[in-house]
Amino acid sequence: MTTAVQKLERRLGYHFNDAALLSQALTHRSVGHLNNERLEFLGDALVNFVVADALFRAKAKAEEGALSRLRASLVREETLARLARELDLSDALTLGESELKSGGFRRDSILADAFEAMLGAVYLDGGFAAARDVCERLFAALLADLPDADALKDAKTRLQEWLQARGRPLPRYEVIEESGPPHRRRFHVRASLSDAETVAAAHGSSRRSAEQDAARALLQALQSAHE
Amino acid sequence: MTTAVQKLERRLGYHFNDAALLSQALTHRSVGHLNNERLEFLGDALVNFVVADALFRAKAKAEEGALSRLRASLVREETLARLARELDLSDALTLGESELKSGGFRRDSILADAFEAMLGAVYLDGGFAAARDVCERLFAALLADLPDADALKDAKTRLQEWLQARGRPLPRYEVIEESGPPHRRRFHVRASLSDAETVAAAHGSSRRSAEQDAARALLQALQSAHE
Repeated sequence: MTTAVQKLERRLGYHFNDAALLSQALTHRSVGHLNNERLEFLGDALVNFVVADALFRAKAKAEEGALSRLRASLVREETLARLARELDLSDALTLGESELKSGGFRRDSILADAFEAMLGAVYLDGGFAAARDVCERLFAALLADLPDADALKDAKTRLQEWLQARGRPLPRYEVIEESGPPHRRRFHVRASLSDAETVAAAHGSSRRSAEQDAARALLQALQSAHE
Repeated sequence: MTTAVQKLERRLGYHFNDAALLSQALTHRSVGHLNNERLEFLGDALVNFVVADALFRAKAKAEEGALSRLRASLVREETLARLARELDLSDALTLGESELKSGGFRRDSILADAFEAMLGAVYLDGGFAAARDVCERLFAALLADLPDADALKDAKTRLQEWLQARGRPLPRYEVIEESGPPHRRRFHVRASLSDAETVAAAHGSSRRSAEQDAARALLQALQSAHE
């Protein structure tokens, strides 16, 4: 009989000497004291380093800021959860009663944490070279098809750079209105320019996110007026 | 003649095959395009991982939160700058005109960045095992004398845990006054309890820092009343 864990090892391309390590990596804290939280701490640092190293080599001309943005896009929870799903990692997860009932095996955070813990376990079981090999294999498709590092900049930065490149003054952000109770505050923010009529506004649950959305809308308006 | 760079290699306990790598690691961006920023990106991730691994092994019973706090205390700028000073790294730094004049070789950020870049350079030059050895040697004294992980918790968390352990309600934080111009705002915050008269207040340049200081003062007042 082939268990879910054995299938996972096959998809990983790595066979554990110490099966208990993999099993612990797949055990969510809802199960009890022996869980994957410590391995996740180790695996998170490992994945960060291996991805940094792979990007450093793949992008020999990229500046530090571009490397940082690319790495953030590769190691964020959503991306790690996607890689975990490609491995059908959830079939091999061990969850406590409460998480089983609420569908925890589908949750991004649980999948991403187990993914990191699993790589931490490979490192403990087989050493750095083995862990780097597995990690690079899992990230291979993403590393081969990296997004444009500029597109990963946040909207306020992109708007600022667009304006600076044209010698224009920086935008101004104002909170037009705050509403809602303290725990569910809503911010209405306007982005405007001192040298043009174009304005854009956006709502958000934080000032920061509303400013980003307003900047994005303003940049789109400016770019389409420029075409 | 022994150069500053050769002395640094001796103190590191590592001799570079490619001297240009070490030289780049010691070159601040104020010098020009060929500088240590990319190596710092790589070295930062390496140091994070090696320290995480060392803590994982040194603290076999510690929970993930304690490991994270310990690591943050070891890899923060101030600590890395201290390690750089112990190596007399500043003697081997290459800075641009402007940084030389303003005493950049004494600045924590410049020293910490060069320290990380130097370890990134060891990794590229000698591989992972060599870089881990050097890194663990540099951190050995700190790893042998780790602070209490609980003492590294922020003041609001410590206050909350102290109250919860005694079955008491959570504190309340209020901004009593905001003053000053937007770019130099001052916050006056009060921390109070619903079940006692004890209150504490603090000023700060952000709401967050004023709350932390108020929490610290309130906890001290509660603890000294308890003794």
